[in-house]
Amino acid sequence: MINIKITIQYDGTNFSGWQIQPEGIRTVQGEINKAIFNIYGEDFKIYGCGRTDAGVHALGAVANFKLPFLKMPESKIHFALNNHLPRDIRIIKSELVDDDFNARASCKWREYIYLVSNGEVFSPFFDKYAWFYRKSTINEKLINEYAKEFLGEHDFTSFCASTDENDTKNRRIERVYCVRRKDDLYFVVRGNAFLHNMVRIMVGTLIEAQHQNLEIGSIREMILAKDRTKALVTAPAHGLYFRKACF
Amino acid sequence: MINIKITIQYDGTNFSGWQIQPEGIRTVQGEINKAIFNIYGEDFKIYGCGRTDAGVHALGAVANFKLPFLKMPESKIHFALNNHLPRDIRIIKSELVDDDFNARASCKWREYIYLVSNGEVFSPFFDKYAWFYRKSTINEKLINEYAKEFLGEHDFTSFCASTDENDTKNRRIERVYCVRRKDDLYFVVRGNAFLHNMVRIMVGTLIEAQHQNLEIGSIREMILAKDRTKALVTAPAHGLYFRKACF
Repeated sequence: MINIKITIQYDGTNFSGWQIQPEGIRTVQGEINKAIFNIYGEDFKIYGCGRTDAGVHALGAVANFKLPFLKMPESKIHFALNNHLPRDIRIIKSELVDDDFNARASCKWREYIYLVSNGEVFSPFFDKYAWFYRKSTINEKLINEYAKEFLGEHDFTSFCASTDENDTKNRRIERVYCVRRKDDLYFVVRGNAFLHNMVRIMVGTLIEAQHQNLEIGSIREMILAKDRTKALVTAPAHGLYFRKACF
Repeated sequence: MINIKITIQYDGTNFSGWQIQPEGIRTVQGEINKAIFNIYGEDFKIYGCGRTDAGVHALGAVANFKLPFLKMPESKIHFALNNHLPRDIRIIKSELVDDDFNARASCKWREYIYLVSNGEVFSPFFDKYAWFYRKSTINEKLINEYAKEFLGEHDFTSFCASTDENDTKNRRIERVYCVRRKDDLYFVVRGNAFLHNMVRIMVGTLIEAQHQNLEIGSIREMILAKDRTKALVTAPAHGLYFRKACF
C-alpha cells in the first residue's frame, strides 16, 4: 500500500468539526473521504492529526491514507482532491511517506493559535475568525505570567470538557504565550496532544484570570484540583486554528 | 440640523451592494437606515461616498446624515448604531462635521484596494475576499508599466459597465499600482471618482494584458477607443475593497 500524507487548510465555519459523522452532517473528514472516493472509487480510512470541533479552523492540519495504486504522481494528488472538495477545504500539499507513518500516532507535537480581538469595535471580517473580547483591555504581560504555570506535564482534568473520553488526562505543554499586534492578541499553544476543549479552556481561563486579577499561582492550583469547575470559561470555537503538527 | 459623519466597514458578501433597495433586499445603506430609525424613530437621508456593488467590501467607507437632535454624544453614536446593526456592518467612528459636509459631494478622492491570490492553491479563508487567478504567475512589474497609462484625467467609457448612467465619463486617476506579498497581489487605485465597475475592469484588464503580453501603450489605446469592448475582463466583485475617502 502507498501511504499518502496531506496537509490541509479549512475554514471551520460551516463544518460540524473534523470527525466523520453519519450522512447529512458536514465534516472535514467526511468531505475528504468523498473526494478520495470520487477519484479512486473506494473508501480508504483517513487518519487525522487532531479532531477539531465545529467552527474551529485549520491552517496546517495533517492526515494520511493508504492507496493500493497511485493513479497520478503523489505530489499532484492534492490538486485532484481539491477539484472534488468544497472551497472551504483546501489540500495544500500531498506527499509519499513511510509505511509506518500515521498522522495521529506519529505526531510529536501539535500547535494551535487562538485569535482574540480586543479593540473597541469588532471588525466585520473577524466575525467568524476571532473572539471579540471587550470587557476590558487585556494585559498580555500578566497573561504571559499565568501562562508559564501550564508548562510541563500535568493532569489536565480541570482543563478539558467533562465529555472527554481519553483514558489519561496527562498532557505535556511545551509552549504557551500570547503576543499583541495592535488590538489583536495571538495565543500560541503547543503540546504533545490535547484533550477535548483543552486549548479553548486554557485561553478562556487565562483571559478571565487576568480580568479578575487572580494571584500568580492560581493556574497551578486549578491544575492540581483536577476539577473542571475550578478552571474558568471556555473561549468560543471560532477563534481557534490548528496551526501545525510536527512528526 | 446636526451633521454626523460615520466611517464604516462591511463584509459585502451577503449584501446586494451599498444602495438602498425595496424592502426584502439586503443593502448596507438599508441596514444603516434601519439602525438610525431604531434609535431616532425617524428616517434620515444617508449620503454615501460611493455605491459599491454586491459582494464588494469596505474598510473605510464614509457616509453622513443630519439629525434634529443628538440624544447622545456624537462620538458615541457609532456604538449605538452598532447595537442595531448586523455584525457584517460595523461603524468604526462617528463625528460632528460642518453643515455643508456631504460624503458624496465633498469627497476629494476615493481609494480602492483589489486583492488577487496568485498561488497554487486558493486559501479557504480568501474564498469571498480575493480573486483566485491561477492561469499563470502574474508579472507585477509589467502590470505597473501598463498601470501608468491610466494616470491623469481621461474619458473612461472603455472602462465602465455599459449600464453606467453618469453624464460624463471623465475621471482623474491619481494612483494605480500593484504590490506583491508572497502569493498575494494588492492593487491600489485612487481617483477623484469612479464609474460603475471601473476599478474591476481596470484590474481585470491589467492582469489579462500582462497574461497576453500586450505592448506597452495598449491601455492608452483602449482608453482612447471609448468603447467597452476594447478593454478586457471585469475582475470579480469579491476581491474589491473600498479603502478610504479623503475630504
